[in-house]
Amino acid sequence: MNAAEATDTSTQTAPADDAGPETWLHHARKVTDPVLREAVDCLHPQARIVVGYHLGWWDAHGRPVTAGWGKAVRPALVLLSARALGARSGTGAHCAAAVQLAHDSSLLHDDIIDRDDTRRHRPAAWRVFGVAGALLGGDAMLALAVSLVQHDGPSRPATAALNEAVQEFIGGQFEDIDFEERAEVSLAECTTMAARKTGALMGAACRLGALTGGADEVQAAELGSFGRSLGLAFQHVDDLLGIWGDPGATGKPAGADLHARKKSLPVVAALGSDGREAAELAELYARDPALDDADILRRAASLVERAGGRQRVGGLARRHLTEALDHLDATRLPASDTRPLRTLAAWLALRDH
Amino acid sequence: MNAAEATDTSTQTAPADDAGPETWLHHARKVTDPVLREAVDCLHPQARIVVGYHLGWWDAHGRPVTAGWGKAVRPALVLLSARALGARSGTGAHCAAAVQLAHDSSLLHDDIIDRDDTRRHRPAAWRVFGVAGALLGGDAMLALAVSLVQHDGPSRPATAALNEAVQEFIGGQFEDIDFEERAEVSLAECTTMAARKTGALMGAACRLGALTGGADEVQAAELGSFGRSLGLAFQHVDDLLGIWGDPGATGKPAGADLHARKKSLPVVAALGSDGREAAELAELYARDPALDDADILRRAASLVERAGGRQRVGGLARRHLTEALDHLDATRLPASDTRPLRTLAAWLALRDH
Repeated sequence: MNAAEATDTSTQTAPADDAGPETWLHHARKVTDPVLREAVDCLHPQARIVVGYHLGWWDAHGRPVTAGWGKAVRPALVLLSARALGARSGTGAHCAAAVQLAHDSSLLHDDIIDRDDTRRHRPAAWRVFGVAGALLGGDAMLALAVSLVQHDGPSRPATAALNEAVQEFIGGQFEDIDFEERAEVSLAECTTMAARKTGALMGAACRLGALTGGADEVQAAELGSFGRSLGLAFQHVDDLLGIWGDPGATGKPAGADLHARKKSLPVVAALGSDGREAAELAELYARDPALDDADILRRAASLVERAGGRQRVGGLARRHLTEALDHLDATRLPASDTRPLRTLAAWLALRDH
Repeated sequence: MNAAEATDTSTQTAPADDAGPETWLHHARKVTDPVLREAVDCLHPQARIVVGYHLGWWDAHGRPVTAGWGKAVRPALVLLSARALGARSGTGAHCAAAVQLAHDSSLLHDDIIDRDDTRRHRPAAWRVFGVAGALLGGDAMLALAVSLVQHDGPSRPATAALNEAVQEFIGGQFEDIDFEERAEVSLAECTTMAARKTGALMGAACRLGALTGGADEVQAAELGSFGRSLGLAFQHVDDLLGIWGDPGATGKPAGADLHARKKSLPVVAALGSDGREAAELAELYARDPALDDADILRRAASLVERAGGRQRVGGLARRHLTEALDHLDATRLPASDTRPLRTLAAWLALRDH
């Protein structure tokens, strides 16, 4: 979001229940951004510069830019979960900021680990501030996240929810790295990894929103499970976009995941099929140096598709969306109150950018 | 500590008030180690292996070793601050574990940043598990620390105390890195950096112990200031040992800080003096490649000493110890209750290993 969008959360008028998904995401950015800015302003000046650069508020010298900090999927899940419990608009803004910070901390550290040069259409923080600056900036974000989560609701369960999610996504990152070094990865292992790496924090986002909105334990648990299943669907779609996404929309080059020889779910599904496409794909993945050429990348994408990887993962995403919506029903909250969550969930699990 | 020492905290008999400093440190290790082990056992298996290796419990493959996790200075400060308030033995053990984890998280990440090969006489974690493993292991420790601090006492102030200290030491690390790239650093800047990098967490340790023991706000603040001043004294002595320490005791090669051309306080004090020793030292520090040779290292150490750096920093350490003890008096706690803290403080600020 740009600076003009950043105003006091209390002045934000909430959209109507029947608003579209992008309206909800825009609203979540508007509500969360000022809380994030206030928190980040309290950091050490050098940590603040790194974090604000990563969040798209300014360039490497602190001059304002309007790059933004992403789609605000997780903050929207926090805020809409609180809203589903009948909380007034803006409730859960500190938890929304906390979840975004935890997520961004992992992105910052991930870029160091993967040596990824680009993040959200800009040079990754470690390319600008060095490994030391990005590493410490990520640490600052992680500690700040846990501190912010104390602000909104019941302190102990909220901190526990965020910490458990952080430990899970760290586990997921370990597994992700491990998979890249292994010759074979099963579809089940790949799904478990995605549940840890993406599902856990999106589950925590919904659980935190629910707790902030005054949910009972059953509602908090069901909303948490809703977020976790939705996170899986979201990750599966992300994996599809990592191969077939439009570079202009994803901010990554075409076929980026294939180029990096990632064992993302469509690839694992394709490799696990029995046909000659699987064999040829395995051969391409084993080749060294490999997958640098645009023709070979297109060939690899076509093999994954012909081996059924694309269709399989699209189907899984829809199945996880269905699971998510079942959990939402189990909260027994009025359909009108959960409507924005359903709208957002469907969009996230079926999006093409 | 070794596995035989790791037993239930409730079975630990506390030493008498007049016990020596090393007895208190040994007791702190005994009380804290089982809590640390229980917490680390809940981590993702891959995070657990990295963290337990770093803490000296096992080798890279998970086979038990008895390398230990350091002197337990910070846990001892937590436990003895709680004891000073009249808390029963073992009170504050989770906060003690939390502070140790936060500290070790920073060491793990520092070793990646500085490319230090050795930690506590063993290969640093990043040399064993790679940058990715050590980075994620440090993240896991940091999040776990904030989660553990919730266990013992008042949740919000305890979390705030730890988080503020973490943000301060991250700021101190930024400054430390910055200093190494700058031509000139003042004594005041160097002291501020040390207060952030070491004083903040030792202050938080005492504050957490005080809160856990039921301190009022004045007592918690004074104990926090005691820990912060003691932390400065401790860091100054550490800087002296970084040049003149016995390699067998410090676990680092002789003159390690000079070899790394660190602008530690004795060096900054020496460079800031007016004599020809300062000029010659500056010339040695600017030389590239420099300070690889044992003779040159000895020459540099001698220059720092002759320029008054060693004496100046020893004097500062004693001054900070005096400040620390003044803060301890200001708590108005009975002298018999604060005696172990005074014993430990004097030892830490005057130690030669």
